[in-house]
Amino acid sequence: MSRETVLQKLRDRTAQVGIVGMGYVGLPLAVEFAEAGLHVLGMDLIPEKVEMLNRGESYIIDVPTAQVARLHQAGLLRATTRYEDLAPMDAILICVPTPLRKTKDPDMSFIYAATEGVAKIVHKDLVISLESTTYPGTTEEVLVPLLATDHGLKVGEDIFIAFSPERVDPGNPTYGVRNTPKVVGGVTPACVEIAATLYSAACDRVIPVSSTQAAEMVKLLENTFRAVNIGLVNEMAIMCNKLGVNVWEVIEAAASKPFGFMPFYPGPGLGGHCIPIDPLYLSWKLKALNYNARFIELASEINTSMPYYVINRVADALNDDRKSIRGSQIVVLGVAYKRDIDDVRESPALDIIHLLEEKGATVCYHDPFVASVRLEGGRTAHSQPLTADLLGSADCVVWVTDHSKIDRQFLLDNARLVVDTRNATKGYSGKARVVGL
Amino acid sequence: MSRETVLQKLRDRTAQVGIVGMGYVGLPLAVEFAEAGLHVLGMDLIPEKVEMLNRGESYIIDVPTAQVARLHQAGLLRATTRYEDLAPMDAILICVPTPLRKTKDPDMSFIYAATEGVAKIVHKDLVISLESTTYPGTTEEVLVPLLATDHGLKVGEDIFIAFSPERVDPGNPTYGVRNTPKVVGGVTPACVEIAATLYSAACDRVIPVSSTQAAEMVKLLENTFRAVNIGLVNEMAIMCNKLGVNVWEVIEAAASKPFGFMPFYPGPGLGGHCIPIDPLYLSWKLKALNYNARFIELASEINTSMPYYVINRVADALNDDRKSIRGSQIVVLGVAYKRDIDDVRESPALDIIHLLEEKGATVCYHDPFVASVRLEGGRTAHSQPLTADLLGSADCVVWVTDHSKIDRQFLLDNARLVVDTRNATKGYSGKARVVGL
Repeated sequence: MSRETVLQKLRDRTAQVGIVGMGYVGLPLAVEFAEAGLHVLGMDLIPEKVEMLNRGESYIIDVPTAQVARLHQAGLLRATTRYEDLAPMDAILICVPTPLRKTKDPDMSFIYAATEGVAKIVHKDLVISLESTTYPGTTEEVLVPLLATDHGLKVGEDIFIAFSPERVDPGNPTYGVRNTPKVVGGVTPACVEIAATLYSAACDRVIPVSSTQAAEMVKLLENTFRAVNIGLVNEMAIMCNKLGVNVWEVIEAAASKPFGFMPFYPGPGLGGHCIPIDPLYLSWKLKALNYNARFIELASEINTSMPYYVINRVADALNDDRKSIRGSQIVVLGVAYKRDIDDVRESPALDIIHLLEEKGATVCYHDPFVASVRLEGGRTAHSQPLTADLLGSADCVVWVTDHSKIDRQFLLDNARLVVDTRNATKGYSGKARVVGL
Repeated sequence: MSRETVLQKLRDRTAQVGIVGMGYVGLPLAVEFAEAGLHVLGMDLIPEKVEMLNRGESYIIDVPTAQVARLHQAGLLRATTRYEDLAPMDAILICVPTPLRKTKDPDMSFIYAATEGVAKIVHKDLVISLESTTYPGTTEEVLVPLLATDHGLKVGEDIFIAFSPERVDPGNPTYGVRNTPKVVGGVTPACVEIAATLYSAACDRVIPVSSTQAAEMVKLLENTFRAVNIGLVNEMAIMCNKLGVNVWEVIEAAASKPFGFMPFYPGPGLGGHCIPIDPLYLSWKLKALNYNARFIELASEINTSMPYYVINRVADALNDDRKSIRGSQIVVLGVAYKRDIDDVRESPALDIIHLLEEKGATVCYHDPFVASVRLEGGRTAHSQPLTADLLGSADCVVWVTDHSKIDRQFLLDNARLVVDTRNATKGYSGKARVVGL
């Protein structure tokens, strides 16, 4: 009875959808459901975000303000800071962060807080889907007890619980919520049927899998694949350096193979919210099962060692100029974790600046996207204009983030020494000596 | 002067091409050069191969006999067992095997023998290209001294030496010599120019790189990428088993991601002539430079442990039937190293049979492509017909190679227990209990 009622509301798009966590995952999802004609209520604890949405403004680079304004105007997209306002919702999607603690253990506090918030307003016929990347078993072990068992609700009959991993790639111009296939696993067959019906309003293709654990694993496999391959190519860079071979040239030539190969690129270390973190959710869970996830551990070890490797390259490069790191003036170019974005979370640039300062360098940075950044130790640094004077007075420029708008020719014409960790100077030459990874 | 003379002969296709090693790499290459109108002389130490070619017959699955016959008829393709006959050649391509010794060190004897054979007839203006997968540095360290320095010939002026990795994928219906881009590195700029001109007769696209070392590394990167990703997905299979999740379902769902992911599949262990071996050429070279190629070592360790893992799965599956491996009748299904081919080199099936026999099982095998196989210890086993009787009397069937012509339904209707290491029974069901990796 419940099942049919819920399916009908989802099919005729009279269902109301609540989204907990309106960040780079929640907001694009909210917008896509609203575009499909469903009434969406976004919930976030940060009042500034909620106020912006309720003024029809966006704060996410991939979602235009004009779209938010139009959907808000049409009454399809609203926001709140209070869990209580989610009470009338038919479906609630949880899109909260899952960072790591300092100890590299999963920080599940956001998932717990969101689940407990939803538990306050849980009711019969509610559909709940978790999108946060997490260890396999979370949905059954955390959501089911707090949302169903504690309330005497039977999963698959009274209430429907699913896991569907977000696959957002910030800044990707080709793939968004609509055209990225949506993997969905349910606690019961009714749960997956209902969650798949829900998502089919916002996504062109839904991929049902047989369990929430399988759906949780899908995302962990995807991001572990990336972390391991980046680790591999970082180790390749180290080996190519020992062999006197240009690793970028090797990767580019290998990428000409039309089958069985996918190019990854080395760099100064991993950054961002997903690749360095997600695989550790899987290795943490496996440790509890007495298994050591060896590829994940190795990738993590190599990737987190890359800033130290960069420091060694800087020391070697300065050494060729009869200089030490101590006492050198060093400009770090780019502090965002990847090109053309303003996000510094887990950015290797922060480690590199810290390590250089620890060794006695005087460090400043330039980043066209990041006006200021809080460094290890608490000091706030500000982006310096990339002038001929700044470059001329630097003993070394360490290029960490290859933002496309940084003027390559100007850099090479004015700097003395550039340690280029991204092959960003490829095809350019000037007076500067350039050293690669 | 030499350079222009050689280039002219290559451009007007009057150059004669010798190929040392007429195996699955040399013969397709010979055929493609002959198709381009160049006169090709294949050289191989195995008289049977040479006799077949000189009768216009093929012995390689990807090269039709009709094509060999036509090219032989036209006088464009001949073969010999003697290095001396290569004396009139303008270019010589070396396509010999590079296996490993029992100690897992590179076995360079074929490259040395071929180089020494060519050294006997080396002459001014000769172009030599090595195609065998090998450690970075081989071309400069082995070919240059034996072919140039010893004869007082100057590389890049008197003689032209290059490395161009073969990228043959046996059985690939889409990509062959002609449409797979050809990476070429030369000892000098004249060497790469001349080798690129040579290969452009047989390959639509040539990718020049800056050195023979870079060209050597390209192939090692390609195959290390595969070995590491197969290792990763094998470890994923082990982890999914511990988590109670179906790894095949997870991979299939992850493969729906339209960017940033490439699916690999787990199995009973690596086989064949390339993926298990090539990466160890790189790790061996790095050891000499005091670096431990950690991803390669880990992949090799996990991939070579897979037969042991399969044995554990068999033991667990038999245990559920209150049986031990000792005294059980076991049928191994498939002994080739991959589907629909007859090649048993490095096949994990050989390890699996050996381990099962060591533990006291009575083992037979069925393989529609492999009539007989020499087992560890020297005994030769013969493929048994896959009858209802054979399946009915077996305590367990271990499916190692998923040849497409094996009748899935018949197997599941007649066997008692199947350990399916390839997900080959997907979509079928019968009376047999099926256990996955």
